[in-house]
Amino acid sequence: MSVLVVGSLALDSIETPFKSVQDVLGGSASYFSLAASLFTNVKVVAVVGEDFPDEYIELFRSKGIELEGVKRAPGKTFRWHGRYGYDLGDPATLGTFLNVFEKFDPMIPENYREMEYVFLANIDPQLQLNVLNQVKKPKLVACDTMNYWIENKPNELKEVLRHVNILIVNDSEIRALAKEPRILRAARTVLDMGPEILIVKRGEYGALMFSKEGIFWAPSYPLEEIVDPTGAGDTFAGGFMGYVTSQNTADSVEFKKGVIYGSVVASFTVEDFSVKRLASLQIEEISTRFQAFLKLSNLD
Amino acid sequence: MSVLVVGSLALDSIETPFKSVQDVLGGSASYFSLAASLFTNVKVVAVVGEDFPDEYIELFRSKGIELEGVKRAPGKTFRWHGRYGYDLGDPATLGTFLNVFEKFDPMIPENYREMEYVFLANIDPQLQLNVLNQVKKPKLVACDTMNYWIENKPNELKEVLRHVNILIVNDSEIRALAKEPRILRAARTVLDMGPEILIVKRGEYGALMFSKEGIFWAPSYPLEEIVDPTGAGDTFAGGFMGYVTSQNTADSVEFKKGVIYGSVVASFTVEDFSVKRLASLQIEEISTRFQAFLKLSNLD
Repeated sequence: MSVLVVGSLALDSIETPFKSVQDVLGGSASYFSLAASLFTNVKVVAVVGEDFPDEYIELFRSKGIELEGVKRAPGKTFRWHGRYGYDLGDPATLGTFLNVFEKFDPMIPENYREMEYVFLANIDPQLQLNVLNQVKKPKLVACDTMNYWIENKPNELKEVLRHVNILIVNDSEIRALAKEPRILRAARTVLDMGPEILIVKRGEYGALMFSKEGIFWAPSYPLEEIVDPTGAGDTFAGGFMGYVTSQNTADSVEFKKGVIYGSVVASFTVEDFSVKRLASLQIEEISTRFQAFLKLSNLD
Repeated sequence: MSVLVVGSLALDSIETPFKSVQDVLGGSASYFSLAASLFTNVKVVAVVGEDFPDEYIELFRSKGIELEGVKRAPGKTFRWHGRYGYDLGDPATLGTFLNVFEKFDPMIPENYREMEYVFLANIDPQLQLNVLNQVKKPKLVACDTMNYWIENKPNELKEVLRHVNILIVNDSEIRALAKEPRILRAARTVLDMGPEILIVKRGEYGALMFSKEGIFWAPSYPLEEIVDPTGAGDTFAGGFMGYVTSQNTADSVEFKKGVIYGSVVASFTVEDFSVKRLASLQIEEISTRFQAFLKLSNLD
């Protein structure tokens, strides 16, 4: 089984109090596809500019990630410039340069339109709808969003939610979307909007999965070292969707395992800048940390 | 087995955006003893003023809590006045009136000095040391502290930590104590200061227990309703110590269960103001929620 991701490929410049990097590989589709490729075949739909380095294209190819849907447009690649404080919490955005991403209108290649597993990364909900109109009969669609769209495109976003199976967001996004600070009530409100499953990412506090079968709580392993939290959420989504796609089943145990795999892969991503750790990650390392995650909440 | 708690009995006035209450039962020893009494016998050492209502004395007695060590001193009872915002997060302190608590110097009654299970609630570390000098050969001593003592009495606190088995604090306290934002490193630093076990309370994000045997992560049940978070931490400590005392063993599985029982009892406390929910709590309700907590992180 393969998973299709529609999102951004970007060049990030990231400052932390300890080290800074410039024009490194970033964007939701980068983190998602590298994470998902650890479990399954991945096809990407995105846009890059003329300046997008060949070495990153080579990196994706070396992981078997298919790039037929990545368009190279005249102009520069989407760039993001962020700065983290000492706590490596939410970064300050110093600059967002959409460049070729400003006119991104995802065209799904003909031979991708039968894809059964689809992830709509955090882009304009109108574009997410355009993608949904192009894929024929997906088995499982998951999507992400952000506070900007919740505030500025609420109607389009609600239309997206009526057509996806899984929403993957963070604590503050779920509260904003439901206009409700209490997470349990917020979750119920959002499940009423359409998705059968809601996954709430909580960074170092783990992740929660809500569905009609109940609530599942995945821990997050306390980390020795956090270098750069950028991309953790998209990596989580990639690990989750990659694993679930590889299992090709609607069994709830596999969804729970998917949440843990998502947390596991994200816990590696933050150990280095950009996709550096993700690119060198081996499946054996994932298995070892998966077992450590399970052990965390075991009584004996 | 019995557990001895040394801490505060207070009258709290609490404001939330939804409701306010005045001069209700508060203080670390109140929450701790009512929570621990659900599992085991509890003896309290504390001080109250002449105005401390008889109904609260009666409440403790109805739960079998022994008050021989509670001194009634001339003057008023310790009072705290706090206000919560819409997120019911950290409260703003509008007033702290130590009153009789200002000259509190805990005297452990002669027949309490052989107690094997002891909890030193959040008081001046010098007073915690005074208590340790009076108990003869405790089997298990746990203590709490706060940022104020970490900053203002670091040497006394470090002396306390050399003599306790378990430190129970929250996220920000552990980071301040270790002067280290990364929780895993902070935990190691604190374990080097003396305690064999460190428990970090993280509110709605659960609790972590660190020891030389590894890390245990207890989830926190997403709550339908939070009315007043006051006393959740002391309730956690009471549930934990009460359960561990009742088992009278150093088995690590029982400590893990204790962490879950602490989280369970705390999840009830916040459902109403003051100790109201705690006072009506039945052991069957605790068992039911304990099973729900275990199920939260179960794969199947």
